[in-house]
Amino acid sequence: MSNNQKENTSKLQIIPLGGLEQIGMNITAFRYEDSIIVVDCGLAFPEEDMLGIDLVIPDITYLQDNIDLVKGMVITHGHEDHIGAIPYVLHEMNIPLYATRLTMGIIERKLEEHNLLNNTRRKVVKFGQSINLGQFRIEFIRTNHSIVDAAALAIYSPAGIVVHTGDFKVDYTPVYGDPIDLQRFGEIGKKGVLALMCDSTNAERPGFTASERTVGRAFDNLFDEHQNNRIIIATFASNVDRVQQIINTAYKFGRKVVVEGRSMVNIIDIAQKLECIQIPDNTLIDIDELKNYPDNKTVIITTGSQGESMAALSRMASNQHKKISVGVGDTVIFSSNPIPGNEKAVTNIINELLQKGAEVIFQDVHVSGHACQEDIKLIYTLVRPKYAVPVHGEYRHLIAQKNIALDLGIPKDNIFILHSGEVLELDDNGAEVTGKVPVGAILVDGLGVGDVGNKVLRDRQHLAEDGIVIVVFGIDKENQMLTSGPSVVSRGFVYVKESDKLIEDVTDLVLDEVTEALDKGITDWGKLKKIVMETLSDYLWKKTKRRPMILPIIMDDHA
Amino acid sequence: MSNNQKENTSKLQIIPLGGLEQIGMNITAFRYEDSIIVVDCGLAFPEEDMLGIDLVIPDITYLQDNIDLVKGMVITHGHEDHIGAIPYVLHEMNIPLYATRLTMGIIERKLEEHNLLNNTRRKVVKFGQSINLGQFRIEFIRTNHSIVDAAALAIYSPAGIVVHTGDFKVDYTPVYGDPIDLQRFGEIGKKGVLALMCDSTNAERPGFTASERTVGRAFDNLFDEHQNNRIIIATFASNVDRVQQIINTAYKFGRKVVVEGRSMVNIIDIAQKLECIQIPDNTLIDIDELKNYPDNKTVIITTGSQGESMAALSRMASNQHKKISVGVGDTVIFSSNPIPGNEKAVTNIINELLQKGAEVIFQDVHVSGHACQEDIKLIYTLVRPKYAVPVHGEYRHLIAQKNIALDLGIPKDNIFILHSGEVLELDDNGAEVTGKVPVGAILVDGLGVGDVGNKVLRDRQHLAEDGIVIVVFGIDKENQMLTSGPSVVSRGFVYVKESDKLIEDVTDLVLDEVTEALDKGITDWGKLKKIVMETLSDYLWKKTKRRPMILPIIMDDHA
Repeated sequence: MSNNQKENTSKLQIIPLGGLEQIGMNITAFRYEDSIIVVDCGLAFPEEDMLGIDLVIPDITYLQDNIDLVKGMVITHGHEDHIGAIPYVLHEMNIPLYATRLTMGIIERKLEEHNLLNNTRRKVVKFGQSINLGQFRIEFIRTNHSIVDAAALAIYSPAGIVVHTGDFKVDYTPVYGDPIDLQRFGEIGKKGVLALMCDSTNAERPGFTASERTVGRAFDNLFDEHQNNRIIIATFASNVDRVQQIINTAYKFGRKVVVEGRSMVNIIDIAQKLECIQIPDNTLIDIDELKNYPDNKTVIITTGSQGESMAALSRMASNQHKKISVGVGDTVIFSSNPIPGNEKAVTNIINELLQKGAEVIFQDVHVSGHACQEDIKLIYTLVRPKYAVPVHGEYRHLIAQKNIALDLGIPKDNIFILHSGEVLELDDNGAEVTGKVPVGAILVDGLGVGDVGNKVLRDRQHLAEDGIVIVVFGIDKENQMLTSGPSVVSRGFVYVKESDKLIEDVTDLVLDEVTEALDKGITDWGKLKKIVMETLSDYLWKKTKRRPMILPIIMDDHA
Repeated sequence: MSNNQKENTSKLQIIPLGGLEQIGMNITAFRYEDSIIVVDCGLAFPEEDMLGIDLVIPDITYLQDNIDLVKGMVITHGHEDHIGAIPYVLHEMNIPLYATRLTMGIIERKLEEHNLLNNTRRKVVKFGQSINLGQFRIEFIRTNHSIVDAAALAIYSPAGIVVHTGDFKVDYTPVYGDPIDLQRFGEIGKKGVLALMCDSTNAERPGFTASERTVGRAFDNLFDEHQNNRIIIATFASNVDRVQQIINTAYKFGRKVVVEGRSMVNIIDIAQKLECIQIPDNTLIDIDELKNYPDNKTVIITTGSQGESMAALSRMASNQHKKISVGVGDTVIFSSNPIPGNEKAVTNIINELLQKGAEVIFQDVHVSGHACQEDIKLIYTLVRPKYAVPVHGEYRHLIAQKNIALDLGIPKDNIFILHSGEVLELDDNGAEVTGKVPVGAILVDGLGVGDVGNKVLRDRQHLAEDGIVIVVFGIDKENQMLTSGPSVVSRGFVYVKESDKLIEDVTDLVLDEVTEALDKGITDWGKLKKIVMETLSDYLWKKTKRRPMILPIIMDDHA
């Protein structure tokens, strides 16, 4: 059973292909000789400066270059930052998938949407079960998280064992299923673990993460206090346990429950089929049945807790939802915290709901799904790894975990803050970064995967800032004369109706400059464009202190 | 002395012209018969969807329409959201200004920059002093805040007294000057106060706001723990007390201090001249002298605590600062919390600093400048107003203060959550909203004040999302023929070098459509443009699932 005992000639390589520059786009390759396995395959949501981008997926050139060695893809849990890029990757290469039950259920729904279900080999793995992939054996260990069926992985290689926690928390009293299998973490720790790759998300937060069950008690209290109100609860679509607890409380108080928001309906549907959620008969009703019950006998569970403008809650708040609008008598509960970057959007929707006359509750109705500092210490102390490789976080979170590992006595040189693409080679005798593989973020915009690059993004930023001024004119090159225009059109620059004079002046200026250039015998389009751009840029900056994009278009007229 | 005793025939009007839809753009008119006074005149920073906008100022049509009645402008303190629009308003109308010493010092620097200093009447008012403006008397009452010399106002009118807190906290142990004049609040309360307009910023936060002095103790501890490091502290430019405390600690530890960042240098300069800050000799040094001292004998106080990309700290972190770059051995302290909406920018710069090897400290080195729930209760209990008009906050904050007022026993009908522009008429016999005056947000972009409206913003948003596709062609109307083009140019849409085929197809499509239309005798430019826009819009959506702005430009060719 123990691979450690045979003589090791090669080293294990850990190669993160994403996920270490941000929370999102988690994907890591593990290689031992001619075996590669991939752990997780997530997407990232666009940064603020990625204008118009829908989502971001990892560059998998490394896997494509080594396609013959890739034995399979192992998924820790069903969140988008761990599974969202699977369809895009499967379009490029066919790899078998391994995951626990609910995780696979969610993945399969995705594959269906992308017409990939039939061609993809996949296997549902139980907790405690192992799978063999080339020279690797991977054991799935039960953890707790904000989604059911989350797994940590023990990755056995001839060079030693790596424990990858996935996203986890320590919940002694989970809502569904058993607590995290701490015994198994201890048992594997006793065998001797080469490296621990542990979730860093909450590594800056002191103390312990509270149990999911505490939120259930909060619901009980809130339902008790608001017996005369309709209750609307916004939370994360994939938090099945949260929905379970709302349903439990609703049932206790004799309320009917509507689930609203496409992604949540989807996941609850999968969870029901897989029996990850228990819904008493006659509790869940269709949205169209709401009218048959008094408001204070209903609960609406909805998406949109992050203030997403297209989600159900936003549409309810702004009267754009076809079937539900929020007003006086409603109590809206945010069972969520804003994800960093979403604070403003959330606060905007809270204001909107209050203005409609609803009561809004947004404090103490949520717990995190990630381990805090003391929980992280517990895992390190059970696993006692030789090397620590903090994962899942921005740089600040990785550093925070590094500081925890240092406090626990792990030597500084045994802690590796990796960057995506770095190849960490390790065995019992040592560990070091030995190389780099290509990595990157591929932007998805509509149907386009990768066709929006830095140039396009820079243009969008420029356009967003000060708009565009387009100057069109026709020239007859042979006769060195202007044959049409200049015509000046702007968008997003100034309100044209009140800026007649400016546009007129610009037109005159271009006319003068181009005529003068032509008189001098300059007919080269590049040179003419440059003259127009420079002249206009200076002029508009002087007049407006703005720098719109200036786009000269020359038409070839030789009628 | 008491105006309350004479018979009142008229009512007092409170007319907020801004500041109730957001934190920012505070400006309120008070009117009694033919006297109008204005309290504060602030700007707002642009919302996320106001692309390219520099700042936002209030519409003052109401004041312009009643210019003969406007007696003066009274300013509570020197923050941008209370003074930032003064120069713009003074360009439109000449009004005398009244403010405390540091507040006036900061305003005067602004007026100088706008060439308005000589034409503006202004008077520095001391705490406890009153000024008479028409039928109003306004008394300045000392408070505490995150800027020195903040004042509350007691506004005496024949219809009764209004107490306006300005932005305040209750600090029993302030760094500079005396604690808030709670005695005077009590004394005025005893006279009988018609309405209290109280700061709502922290009305959602339970408990009391800690004293500024607690931050000084935090600095002492941090300096003690980091005796071998250079220390860089980022904080708000206008927080003179914070700078004072850093200087005190630096002096204690024998460190030289550099102040960096234009706005901070400016304010510290004013504060020094007005003796609002005490700097021991030989403590402040010029940035160029840094090299003469060992790193661990220096402190740099800098702007940029909100992650502003152009501020000194950002430039230091990204090696774009000419004189200081951050690296191993530096301890960077954020003596600030992110203002809502800035979380992501702050976290980005923290990551950048950590990656450079600096240690970053961002917890427990800041206190708020605004009153929390228990402080607000204290003020209500001292003032005991008949009516409550919560101010300074988003809707959620105003509602939070309303709930506090309700808890304190103020009747529901005596609490007014106003919207900007509403006219609240009140006297001892009653209060009600009786009308509405024009209000609005005027966008400032470069030199343009108000020339960027909704149309331009919508265009910028459209351009930002999916870019622009420009189609130019020339037609000879008389002969119904295409004389040049179509030429298709795009920006911010797709990476053109890899989308040759798409652009070619678009060109062919336009050629076909326009030719067909011309053949049918359609030569109207509007109709031709519409054909091009609709055809292209459908085609590009089908091909790319994107909706770029489509801009057809027709040139009039009749060579």
